[in-house]
Amino acid sequence: MRVMFPKVVIIGTGLIGGSLGLALKRSRLATEIVGVARRPQTLKLARRRGCITSGETDWRRAVSGAQLVILACPVHAILEQLRDIGSCLAAGCIVMDVGSTKQAIVNAAQLHLPPTVYFVGAHPLAGSEKTGPGQARSDLFRNCVCVVTPTRRTHAPSLKKMKHVWRQLGASVAIMPPQTHDRIVAYTSHMPHLLAAALMLSVPPRMFPYTAGGFRDMTRIAAGDEEMWRDIFCTNRAALQSVLTVFGRALTRLEQSFAKGRPEIGKRLLGKARRARQSFPGDAP
Amino acid sequence: MRVMFPKVVIIGTGLIGGSLGLALKRSRLATEIVGVARRPQTLKLARRRGCITSGETDWRRAVSGAQLVILACPVHAILEQLRDIGSCLAAGCIVMDVGSTKQAIVNAAQLHLPPTVYFVGAHPLAGSEKTGPGQARSDLFRNCVCVVTPTRRTHAPSLKKMKHVWRQLGASVAIMPPQTHDRIVAYTSHMPHLLAAALMLSVPPRMFPYTAGGFRDMTRIAAGDEEMWRDIFCTNRAALQSVLTVFGRALTRLEQSFAKGRPEIGKRLLGKARRARQSFPGDAP
Repeated sequence: MRVMFPKVVIIGTGLIGGSLGLALKRSRLATEIVGVARRPQTLKLARRRGCITSGETDWRRAVSGAQLVILACPVHAILEQLRDIGSCLAAGCIVMDVGSTKQAIVNAAQLHLPPTVYFVGAHPLAGSEKTGPGQARSDLFRNCVCVVTPTRRTHAPSLKKMKHVWRQLGASVAIMPPQTHDRIVAYTSHMPHLLAAALMLSVPPRMFPYTAGGFRDMTRIAAGDEEMWRDIFCTNRAALQSVLTVFGRALTRLEQSFAKGRPEIGKRLLGKARRARQSFPGDAP
Repeated sequence: MRVMFPKVVIIGTGLIGGSLGLALKRSRLATEIVGVARRPQTLKLARRRGCITSGETDWRRAVSGAQLVILACPVHAILEQLRDIGSCLAAGCIVMDVGSTKQAIVNAAQLHLPPTVYFVGAHPLAGSEKTGPGQARSDLFRNCVCVVTPTRRTHAPSLKKMKHVWRQLGASVAIMPPQTHDRIVAYTSHMPHLLAAALMLSVPPRMFPYTAGGFRDMTRIAAGDEEMWRDIFCTNRAALQSVLTVFGRALTRLEQSFAKGRPEIGKRLLGKARRARQSFPGDAP
């Protein structure tokens, strides 16, 4: 059987990039997997863990002759790469990003990439507060949802290929426009992260000894990489603001329901929240 | 060796009460452990799991002749029990509550209990979104902090006994005034719970399939029992409101730092939040 991608380049060999390398190799979708990172130690670790077959610090040199280039850096780095990468790529190369916000990236790809290369925007919902190739796992994408965000200009055969790749890695693929993706993750990922960080910033450290499992669960994501999250908040700020308005209203309504004489309204709201949480498949109490 | 408490009564055999029964028995601090619950099925389960040696649905009958009575119901039920329980107790009996807020309970104990019985307020920081005796564990209090909230009127030998009990169960004891406890848990427990519940109420259910581990971690506590949490919010509302004001300021500052031209302030704040979270002992990434 012919391998789908003889040469894949992964720019950014962190948790997601490194796990993609491991998973692509394991599912025999790629032969040569070139990793790109700024720091040689990162590449060394990624190679030792089997995420990549070779490493390169200069992405311009790395991408030559690749059939698939995966952009797996924080969003602003992806935006920069998209400005220049077109001229370095062979005709027919697929460029897929796995950035956390999609509208800004898809726009930049349409603006900068030549028509000879095919762009597919994707976002596997599989992150963690853990970072770096040391945390990479070949099964990171198993049972996760990967959102793929084509536009009218997306090359249909390349889109089909990328859907096939994600399914091979164990993900289920959800297709939607970039702005729909950004609005959804503002609710399900960006707002929760902002709340966790604000919680860490507002609880005085002298009170940390009095936290229990709930607080730890709730704030775990606040340990995430600040460069990645800065880029997310900067490129999805409008959606995040409208989501925060919705959240603020729910919070005020809930808090005020515990005023004298109305606790039953509060209990009802808490019950609604409990049932919603328990409806999540796989980890009901 | 003489057993410290020949007869202990635990009113409320849920996660905390049931675990206390298991732990008291295992550490040989009690012989007879009578559990009190409204529903016979709860008592049956608690007995089958070894949390109690016998069960009783009427607490007035259960407490007669006990050396230690533990109040382990939601806060409002504890407040009601404190109004009536004094006349049912033998002289010299220790009454300890494990309620989640302390000021209201300590006040009620001082108001209603006769001087012949000794009250000690306590709160082991060891809850979970899980409920009922089916979830009880004899090691639930190991390595947890138990806050004990004496006042000038607390009987010193009884306080000493209760500190000994918690240490025997593996907890470290923190002594502080009730209002200090309530202010701390408003930060470390009540505000996080309110945020998790408001998050569940503001994210549209159609977006639930697009949540990943971070959202699940963050909202796990929202699956907690709404009666218990209603009582907490009602009896600690003033502290919670002032804590929400602090939180709102931190959130606004963080969100606004991602406005055009200031992302480095936001990155710095996120870095501060990350370092604070990583400073927690035992679960740094």
